[in-house]
Amino acid sequence: MSLTDQLPKKVVDNMMARDAYSQWLGIEVLSVAAGHVKLQMTVRKEMLNGFGVCHGGVTFALADSALAFACNSHGRLSVLLNASMAYPAAVNEGDVLLAEAREESLSNKVGIYSVTVKKAADETKVGVFSATVYRTGKNFLDTIESEEK
Amino acid sequence: MSLTDQLPKKVVDNMMARDAYSQWLGIEVLSVAAGHVKLQMTVRKEMLNGFGVCHGGVTFALADSALAFACNSHGRLSVLLNASMAYPAAVNEGDVLLAEAREESLSNKVGIYSVTVKKAADETKVGVFSATVYRTGKNFLDTIESEEK
Amino acid sequence: MSLTDQLPKKVVDNMMARDAYSQWLGIEVLSVAAGHVKLQMTVRKEMLNGFGVCHGGVTFALADSALAFACNSHGRLSVLLNASMAYPAAVNEGDVLLAEAREESLSNKVGIYSVTVKKAADETKVGVFSATVYRTGKNFLDTIESEEK
Amino acid sequence: MSLTDQLPKKVVDNMMARDAYSQWLGIEVLSVAAGHVKLQMTVRKEMLNGFGVCHGGVTFALADSALAFACNSHGRLSVLLNASMAYPAAVNEGDVLLAEAREESLSNKVGIYSVTVKKAADETKVGVFSATVYRTGKNFLDTIESEEK
Repeated sequence: MSLTDQLPKKVVDNMMARDAYSQWLGIEVLSVAAGHVKLQMTVRKEMLNGFGVCHGGVTFALADSALAFACNSHGRLSVLLNASMAYPAAVNEGDVLLAEAREESLSNKVGIYSVTVKKAADETKVGVFSATVYRTGKNFLDTIESEEK
Repeated sequence: MSLTDQLPKKVVDNMMARDAYSQWLGIEVLSVAAGHVKLQMTVRKEMLNGFGVCHGGVTFALADSALAFACNSHGRLSVLLNASMAYPAAVNEGDVLLAEAREESLSNKVGIYSVTVKKAADETKVGVFSATVYRTGKNFLDTIESEEK
Repeated sequence: MSLTDQLPKKVVDNMMARDAYSQWLGIEVLSVAAGHVKLQMTVRKEMLNGFGVCHGGVTFALADSALAFACNSHGRLSVLLNASMAYPAAVNEGDVLLAEAREESLSNKVGIYSVTVKKAADETKVGVFSATVYRTGKNFLDTIESEEK
Repeated sequence: MSLTDQLPKKVVDNMMARDAYSQWLGIEVLSVAAGHVKLQMTVRKEMLNGFGVCHGGVTFALADSALAFACNSHGRLSVLLNASMAYPAAVNEGDVLLAEAREESLSNKVGIYSVTVKKAADETKVGVFSATVYRTGKNFLDTIESEEK
């Protein structure tokens, strides 16, 4: 495995280890490649809204974590500018959700990503997410190392 | 105070009492009127992402709760179809956030809402959210009462 | 070919024949299937903005026509509620654009669609579009026939 | 009137004079200030879609022109990254539309704008648009002058 192949996994491992909220969500990283990430999480009672179904902010957060891992996987520190999400179906307590982030486009300054969220049990689509990120000039791993010194 | 004036507050009180995730977020309801809601929450350590700032999903969830309370305040059970959010500035641990939902448009089947999220300290805008909801034919309070029987 | 297979083409032919703006854009329908449509158009001088590149509203309109044809292809009159578009690269005069609409999700009342717009010459992505539509109870072809009587 | 006050009008006059598509739309500039623009246009027969109402791409284009004028009014060449639009009501032939762009947020690299589109006759809202732009380091008027030499 070349260094290039290892970078996406190294970045995502470092991000996940520091990401308190993704940990609270119970996110598991299923796979990582440059610009492409698959995550899984299970919906718990404390994630439900006033109608007894999963809060829209939780489904969005899963997609947003998938996006963040995918766009930072190239090693350049990238920040979310804008995201939109459509909600085709409700999500219930106990549902296992799968999120898959794909890179639609990548230029020097800007990246565009799509994330699909499905129920693991029957592949029902429950979230269709797309986002635009700004790519800073900073190297994510350098940033971490300088903080640790 | 007429019954019409009381309805929005009654709906939101009932929604908030049942909304486990908004409770986890620590959301406080500052004001409620038909189609118009103000909320407040404080960003805690467990809401931070891998960069040490507030996870985008948390800011989105605050806006989404404001939207849900605003669109259901008319008494008709309403569900989120689509939302988009722009992120003008980062949010830090300890920041107190204010979210204000406004009704842009309301028809028989569809409502459109804008939510602005600001830091309470200096009014820095940190989220510009807009959403489209579908208005079902169900009465929210009837739905609750039939469940309680 | 079964009647079901013929319906999408029949609907799109009727829509396109009546769609003055898609005709002005010079849209050609490359292929039609249920929930899936490919269109092509060439960018002309009168479609450019003040920077001398294709106006964002023109690229959006191509995607929106693809969406409209795809969501109505099932025969149920469907109307656009919300759309978002990201613009990864500029489009120039003379560029031939391809738009492909795909159905992400379809329920009784709501459909979610993605449309990708590319340059035909080199497949550069120039638009990433997603939209939510409301499906009315009306039959599109019945509506046309009753108007024609 | 100070030079600062004159800049937005000078920029928008120059943009509009070069913007072939906004001219085709028949856009009139009603007012211009830094980050704030009002436009008007009338819906013509060739702007209608297959349902005989105004094509969604035309309403979007009006909002997009308002955005482009507003975000460039500061003199820095700015490009659209992402926009979303909700469609609360249909627009008919002959309707006079008013679009008002407001700056939601402005930082060194990024601007966020909202545009509301209404019918002039009765103030019915027909478009709720929001967009994120990237602010380049180039001066718009310098760019024009260097082209003209």
